[in-house]
Amino acid sequence: MAVKRLLVIGIGAGDPDHLTIQGAKAIAATDVFFLIDKGEEKDEPVRLRRRLIEEHGRPPYRIVEARDPERDRAAAAYAEAVEDWRARRAELYRRMIEDELPDGRTGAFLVWGDPGVYDSTLAILDRLPYEYEVIPGISAISALTARHRTTLTRVGSPVHITTGRRLAEQGPTADDILVMLDSRCAFAGLTGYHIYWGAYLGTPDEILIAGPVAEVADRIREARAEARARKGWIMDTYLLRRPR
Amino acid sequence: MAVKRLLVIGIGAGDPDHLTIQGAKAIAATDVFFLIDKGEEKDEPVRLRRRLIEEHGRPPYRIVEARDPERDRAAAAYAEAVEDWRARRAELYRRMIEDELPDGRTGAFLVWGDPGVYDSTLAILDRLPYEYEVIPGISAISALTARHRTTLTRVGSPVHITTGRRLAEQGPTADDILVMLDSRCAFAGLTGYHIYWGAYLGTPDEILIAGPVAEVADRIREARAEARARKGWIMDTYLLRRPR
Repeated sequence: MAVKRLLVIGIGAGDPDHLTIQGAKAIAATDVFFLIDKGEEKDEPVRLRRRLIEEHGRPPYRIVEARDPERDRAAAAYAEAVEDWRARRAELYRRMIEDELPDGRTGAFLVWGDPGVYDSTLAILDRLPYEYEVIPGISAISALTARHRTTLTRVGSPVHITTGRRLAEQGPTADDILVMLDSRCAFAGLTGYHIYWGAYLGTPDEILIAGPVAEVADRIREARAEARARKGWIMDTYLLRRPR
Repeated sequence: MAVKRLLVIGIGAGDPDHLTIQGAKAIAATDVFFLIDKGEEKDEPVRLRRRLIEEHGRPPYRIVEARDPERDRAAAAYAEAVEDWRARRAELYRRMIEDELPDGRTGAFLVWGDPGVYDSTLAILDRLPYEYEVIPGISAISALTARHRTTLTRVGSPVHITTGRRLAEQGPTADDILVMLDSRCAFAGLTGYHIYWGAYLGTPDEILIAGPVAEVADRIREARAEARARKGWIMDTYLLRRPR
């Protein structure tokens, strides 16, 4: 029986050359691309996906676009809000796949960064009755440390990966902390740490700032606010490291 | 003044198609490749590097091989043993680069996985007076989660990245723990966890085992011992996750 085949393709953290050969082959093997518009101002991520499809796709293929359900970002119960949003998103995906992907054909989702790192596509597909395959991508974590020419791991220290929200609530929990999804600059008070901060990694707009938090926190805050205002969106990540 | 230019290229976690387009271009731009032989039985990683150089290198280029200094793996003071080994390795690298890379030319180190994740190349180059650039690669972390079609991060939980040694000493420190460099199966007692284990990721010898630790620990131990004996080396990684 011909089944619908789905690919979840990590496209890397902003640089079109972050795409792997495996990712390029997966794009070439795709009949239907599902592009989800986040409904915000982020059309650059959508443009990168279109560019990769144009460069590596093998016609005939189709592009199906959908608008993401709105997420209640103001909700106090963060996990529940995400859960509700994912349920609605799963239904959107299910309908899209049923309506647009014929049996025996291959559909693909192009995921920013790596599908395993703070992305909801796999959690959504897990609720649906389709087989899928995951193609790993360069995560924002790898892109950040590469651009700063530093490592994520140090000998003898664990690394904690967390969110800005959690860092703000709990304070620092390790000597090496990788923070994603921080809209509130939760690093600001952590004066014992060195910070490696990056925004729009791998793109022409990339901003890199590194130094002791006490010295560079204000500069990062200003650069972040300025860039966010100018571009309408921001994607940033940072590594906090307590010097030995 | 013409300077020596160095590239540290992440080549991904075992699958030659993990190489990024950026990595392929970097290989094409390289005049001298430095291949470090670990001196153990691991000639497969060396073969992958040679294959990528053959496929993506642009002649004329040269390959310079060197034997890694021996590391005292039995030393009780792990960090000190690593430090001593790195100092000797830095001297080896310095001599290699001075003797074999002409000014104005580009040399490259091809690093398994991602140069930021448990690799010592950057720590070594930091001691030397050369400029270098880092090209991120698919880490074993991304490869592991992709093959298990799971994510590294879950909403609302931090992830701890640690070593088998540290896990054995400290026990589990989070609901989501990514473990590398574990030769002693430190997961064995952690019966409250689910494990996603993988060895030789991305290669034809890949082994994947997942399930509750209580149910699959013995199977992983046996598969690991058998594969290690048969192939002479093993590279494995796992994610521990406490179900909600």
